[in-house]
Amino acid sequence: MSNNNVFYAQSGGVTAVINASACGVIETARQLPAFGKVYAGRNGIIGALREELIDTSHESSATIAALRHTPAGAFGSCRYKLKSVEQNRAEYERLIDVFRAHNIGYFFYNGGGDSQDTANKVAQFSQQMHFPITCIGIPKTVDNDLPITDCCPGFGSVAKYVAVSIREAGLDVASMAESSTKVFVMEVMGRHAGWIAGAAGLAAEQEGDAPHLIVFPEIAFDKASFLAKVHESVSRYGYCAIVVSEGAHYADGTFLADAGGKDAFGHTQLGGVAPFLAAMIKQELGYKYHWAVSDYLQRAARHIASATDVAQAYAMGKAAVEFALAGKNAVMPTIVRESSSPYRWSVGEARLSDVANVEKKMPRDFITEDGFGITAKAREYFAPLIQGEDYPPYRNGLPQYARLQHVLVPRKLPAWTGK
Amino acid sequence: MSNNNVFYAQSGGVTAVINASACGVIETARQLPAFGKVYAGRNGIIGALREELIDTSHESSATIAALRHTPAGAFGSCRYKLKSVEQNRAEYERLIDVFRAHNIGYFFYNGGGDSQDTANKVAQFSQQMHFPITCIGIPKTVDNDLPITDCCPGFGSVAKYVAVSIREAGLDVASMAESSTKVFVMEVMGRHAGWIAGAAGLAAEQEGDAPHLIVFPEIAFDKASFLAKVHESVSRYGYCAIVVSEGAHYADGTFLADAGGKDAFGHTQLGGVAPFLAAMIKQELGYKYHWAVSDYLQRAARHIASATDVAQAYAMGKAAVEFALAGKNAVMPTIVRESSSPYRWSVGEARLSDVANVEKKMPRDFITEDGFGITAKAREYFAPLIQGEDYPPYRNGLPQYARLQHVLVPRKLPAWTGK
Repeated sequence: MSNNNVFYAQSGGVTAVINASACGVIETARQLPAFGKVYAGRNGIIGALREELIDTSHESSATIAALRHTPAGAFGSCRYKLKSVEQNRAEYERLIDVFRAHNIGYFFYNGGGDSQDTANKVAQFSQQMHFPITCIGIPKTVDNDLPITDCCPGFGSVAKYVAVSIREAGLDVASMAESSTKVFVMEVMGRHAGWIAGAAGLAAEQEGDAPHLIVFPEIAFDKASFLAKVHESVSRYGYCAIVVSEGAHYADGTFLADAGGKDAFGHTQLGGVAPFLAAMIKQELGYKYHWAVSDYLQRAARHIASATDVAQAYAMGKAAVEFALAGKNAVMPTIVRESSSPYRWSVGEARLSDVANVEKKMPRDFITEDGFGITAKAREYFAPLIQGEDYPPYRNGLPQYARLQHVLVPRKLPAWTGK
Repeated sequence: MSNNNVFYAQSGGVTAVINASACGVIETARQLPAFGKVYAGRNGIIGALREELIDTSHESSATIAALRHTPAGAFGSCRYKLKSVEQNRAEYERLIDVFRAHNIGYFFYNGGGDSQDTANKVAQFSQQMHFPITCIGIPKTVDNDLPITDCCPGFGSVAKYVAVSIREAGLDVASMAESSTKVFVMEVMGRHAGWIAGAAGLAAEQEGDAPHLIVFPEIAFDKASFLAKVHESVSRYGYCAIVVSEGAHYADGTFLADAGGKDAFGHTQLGGVAPFLAAMIKQELGYKYHWAVSDYLQRAARHIASATDVAQAYAMGKAAVEFALAGKNAVMPTIVRESSSPYRWSVGEARLSDVANVEKKMPRDFITEDGFGITAKAREYFAPLIQGEDYPPYRNGLPQYARLQHVLVPRKLPAWTGK
């Protein structure tokens, strides 16, 4: 019996469009006789280790199509990084055992840098085990930090959400500033890089538009220049709308979010750089403030997804299957920017070994000299990624997202005792 | 010269649809020869006191039409409540002076209970001053706390935003729960009443759907039963998505948000009941958590406004003008529910004296017996209010909101020295 079944897994923090990649994988594999069934890992790679394989063939084509407009990880994801083969050979052996037991010859791993590293290791190890698995990575991360690919599926939709949100909240603050709130601070994701914070800058199209300043993790936080900029904005425009990356930090590396607030239980408060900055502004400048922390809302916001992002996420899933069909291995499809204006992109290819564990930083020349804004070059990069709306269907005023049956494939192996 | 000019002002916290009411006022008045120019108060009633009147006749019909899809207060709002005539007669005299100087015979005040009270007082006082002003209130409040009217324009869109958001974030947490975040806490507006928190409950359509529990200001917070419910949800569904009203409080009236967290500057932390509850859960149950505070994002989110809400907001503005034309005074149009399913509503009428300073509470029978969910009766009430999508136009991936010129009418009076 040929090992033509497919194993697909979602990995790490989920996004508004990772299921669009799953949709691309499943719809494409269903059309190609070379592939057998598509099994999805229940909760990602953990599902393979536990032999918890969701048989997607039980899902109707309508349900699979609905994955394209469904946020989060429909099969479950996980934060679980396989160690090196030397450190935990048993895990790799278990993976191969499960793949062998279920005639799985293809492994599509939908995740960030760690996942691409894992996929690469599995490709190598499966050769050693004489059960060669075709391993293809599918890029995904709201952080936009994978190398080689021009952007990462997931990022464009968060970018659109934060730009729309600060535009709307900015109008709110502008309305109230004369007699009430003068400063608004919105915290966005991005622990290591300011891609998301930078994209929020797209909302400002004319002098005076929100956001008036952005606090990036790339620029060491300087309290004096920050406060001067806030004061200037309030003096000039009557209010100040601020976007701050959760990764904002002082010159010594201390995160602002860890800078000393205590929760009601006496613990150092985790997260919350927005309330921290808001309190600092109140303390030093006396302005009335509001703050927001969108957290998961921003990366799950399928209702305001970027059509470009959805199309790219789907295309990456589809390309992964096509790569496998073409006999490629240990590669990842990428997004290649052909032109920014008009925006044109195509599907490229990267070796997993070149992608794994390399973090793409935002270039310094995306940030204005004063450290609080984005440059024309950044706008040129970000603008196409939020283009287009791709609304989910609604029923009774609410978006209708796919509901899967999650039928598990009968187990053939003993329970996994590794975790 | 007849006093047929109109003064329109926005008051209090703004909403995603208050400008739709402005649109209804201006478009309707423009079509009726009985009315002269429509002036809008710059920053609400403060604009009248300062004689800062925006002449809306300078705005094109396209710009006025765009107000229908523009969030926040396009003319500026304010938090400024006129005192009683006895306490500050000079303010009322100033208002009448400004109205007289600019031939204003109609005052449309778009706000909550306080504003309806003010409009009522101005109607009475203007009679005493022998310069009778027709005063019509236009309901507006995300808090949904005005009496007589079935609902308040502004509420339906916040309701839709919070229900969509907790549905999306709930899917995210469900994806991650096996190996990471198990609890998500989303804080929503509503200092005194749980209307907004309750509406979020619409997101749960089937057993196990988010939100799994709602913390209402109507129910004294009981830590033990709350934690038991969180534990039960995690045990049963693998995760727990919580919606908490900012007004959640203990039996003694202490707000949870004021329960002891300190910011980095040593001050009691304002707001932030979501991080408070998240930290409590971590402390007592050990679950990994995330939390979100949408703050202004929820009430400014025109991108996901309820079509029902937009239509009602517009209708209230239109009805206000029609009431004035019909010779009515000191009244407010209301929304009358004719039927819930299918939803049918009509425009009714309330006396300002019956509306002013009366706060409509959410009925106890909207909340389940255990205090953590909504009943079928609540669903019947909430469901129609989030019906329909009314997307703004987009350009370059961002919603295009009206930009006004804000041309001020030349001053005729000495500067106001009252404030």
